[in-house]
Amino acid sequence: MSSASPLALLGNLGYDVRAMSYARPNIEQMHGYVPGEQPKVPGLIKLNTNENPYPPSPKVFEALRAAVDERLRLYPDPQSLGLRQKLGRRFGFDPAQILIGNGCDDILNLCVRAFVGEGEKLAYFWPSYSLYPVLADIQGAQKIELPLDDQFQIRSVPSVAGVKLLFITQPNAPSGVWLHKEKLRDIIETMDGVVVVDEAYVDFASDNCLNFIGKYPNVLVARSFSKSSALAGMRLGWVVGPTELIGALDKVRDSYNVSRLSQLAGEAAIDDVPYFEETVRKVKATRERVRRQLEDWSFGVLPSETNFVFAKPPAPLTAKRWFDGLRERKVLVRWWDADRIRDFARVSIGTDKEMDKFLEATHETLR
Amino acid sequence: MSSASPLALLGNLGYDVRAMSYARPNIEQMHGYVPGEQPKVPGLIKLNTNENPYPPSPKVFEALRAAVDERLRLYPDPQSLGLRQKLGRRFGFDPAQILIGNGCDDILNLCVRAFVGEGEKLAYFWPSYSLYPVLADIQGAQKIELPLDDQFQIRSVPSVAGVKLLFITQPNAPSGVWLHKEKLRDIIETMDGVVVVDEAYVDFASDNCLNFIGKYPNVLVARSFSKSSALAGMRLGWVVGPTELIGALDKVRDSYNVSRLSQLAGEAAIDDVPYFEETVRKVKATRERVRRQLEDWSFGVLPSETNFVFAKPPAPLTAKRWFDGLRERKVLVRWWDADRIRDFARVSIGTDKEMDKFLEATHETLR
Repeated sequence: MSSASPLALLGNLGYDVRAMSYARPNIEQMHGYVPGEQPKVPGLIKLNTNENPYPPSPKVFEALRAAVDERLRLYPDPQSLGLRQKLGRRFGFDPAQILIGNGCDDILNLCVRAFVGEGEKLAYFWPSYSLYPVLADIQGAQKIELPLDDQFQIRSVPSVAGVKLLFITQPNAPSGVWLHKEKLRDIIETMDGVVVVDEAYVDFASDNCLNFIGKYPNVLVARSFSKSSALAGMRLGWVVGPTELIGALDKVRDSYNVSRLSQLAGEAAIDDVPYFEETVRKVKATRERVRRQLEDWSFGVLPSETNFVFAKPPAPLTAKRWFDGLRERKVLVRWWDADRIRDFARVSIGTDKEMDKFLEATHETLR
Repeated sequence: MSSASPLALLGNLGYDVRAMSYARPNIEQMHGYVPGEQPKVPGLIKLNTNENPYPPSPKVFEALRAAVDERLRLYPDPQSLGLRQKLGRRFGFDPAQILIGNGCDDILNLCVRAFVGEGEKLAYFWPSYSLYPVLADIQGAQKIELPLDDQFQIRSVPSVAGVKLLFITQPNAPSGVWLHKEKLRDIIETMDGVVVVDEAYVDFASDNCLNFIGKYPNVLVARSFSKSSALAGMRLGWVVGPTELIGALDKVRDSYNVSRLSQLAGEAAIDDVPYFEETVRKVKATRERVRRQLEDWSFGVLPSETNFVFAKPPAPLTAKRWFDGLRERKVLVRWWDADRIRDFARVSIGTDKEMDKFLEATHETLR
């Protein structure tokens, strides 16, 4: 060992202390993102991570089974061109305006890396997707939390001077509400930096923000196959926007970021529009039925444009006791012990049968 | 639009100029990584991206076919625990020392983000994997290029003062040579920062560096399923090291970075050791046969411990004309117009039949 080795010099300080200092200070200090549980309890009704209760299209299964062969030894198309072409045709964009990610989280990550340097400002509304502050911490960016009002809406255009990147979840999570589009326009026109409209849940809403693309040079719209296409297990997301912004994301992207099978699953899902529309329709119908029942029982339910409801139980029942009571009855929903949202629980919309059990379990916790 | 809007003020400058300024300066200025071509030419013999010529294990196909069902609607295990346990048992590590990536490139990317801040030093030997400088550029890190000697070996311990992260490809690419392990030890003991031994090709070598783990607090060893396990299409890599370093990478990792099917493919591949050993043995045997033939024809062939050979044709044939001649004959290898390596071409080892055609085409270009 070289006599100049800091390892030798620090030897007595021990392993742990030394090793921790290898990480950047922002990484050392931060807390990682905590995903919802993926428990393997038999018989559990899983309404905690907003998965689609219906399977992916049968065409997806066909495409995947046909692709499980020796071609898996080959790298995938680094450009995911087939999938981008299909998305372009479906939504009316040039494939050059589209980029594919290993899940929508990959897309959000690329946006941070392309547009926000260390110490620069990254903004997001709060409460919203809890990954945004984590991505800011990883990048060593300055977090700007923009509060939503009591109805989880944007009250007035916030000050966004110097903000390099703003994430807006539309419809928002965990509230499920649709943010007024006029307010979004006002913010976009004030913004100096890039606005990412994160539309992970938008297929369950009545509107979307794709018409911002082509109108604003600083807007990207991100989408996911996880929820409405029931492909959470395949990891697939996409983003559309001006080619200049897409080009910046493409430089940051891992060149083989999407597997052969995930690309094919996405293509097959897009091809089956009737199946997609039918399952989305069913989820929305169930959502409204659940909302009405909860409201009949005096829950406060926010108007949902997503595949979940965010609901506040009537006193004396608390959200925490509702959550615990459901869990005891093998129904898993999501509850956060966090400011602004601890009075609510978020309930993903399952099949009608699952939601009947959820309602039954809820009714029992009300007694 | 607000009168203070910079978009309004800059309107006349036009779209492109404005949009480019959204990206960080390092992203604007950098060039993205250029992966090897994935052409779809019928009958082409593809020896350009070091894929395995043999298919993945039949057990992989079985596992994947059995998993193509409604469970794809569910998120994957965010911890890839089953795969980490199997890797731990196979190689003698605790699962807590192992992290799974969406390909080995994902792992390398996580290392940069966890250990190197903007403006800090990231080092790598040169010539080596051309992704390293790209990852440095994305992070806005300072690139320290450490030259290899004429034999593509490390001559003396370089100055690595202040280097936060050093990538060492072992065996190296594109040279294919095994770097003297003693030299690696000397460097590791001098290093103030983290050393990542990138063993993407190590299963085709006679040795490996896993015994560095447990000995040094600053060493990680990265591995890939793409080459030796023939799973390039599935995107799967892993890294092993001290839990403190793994913990830092885990904070930076996308929580659902590996799809359900990729996790299962990896597990099934690990379970089929005899198949793995047999295909690796075949690739190595073919490699030696190709090397001998090329040497008989007076090519300079570096001693390869990988699934490719890096060879220099005898004058008057140049590497570029060899590459072009092969391409005309529908054999695709890889050639870089870059300092230090433009006199060589890199040839992935295919099946015996493919390599016979490669040798035949080579013989024709020699005339």
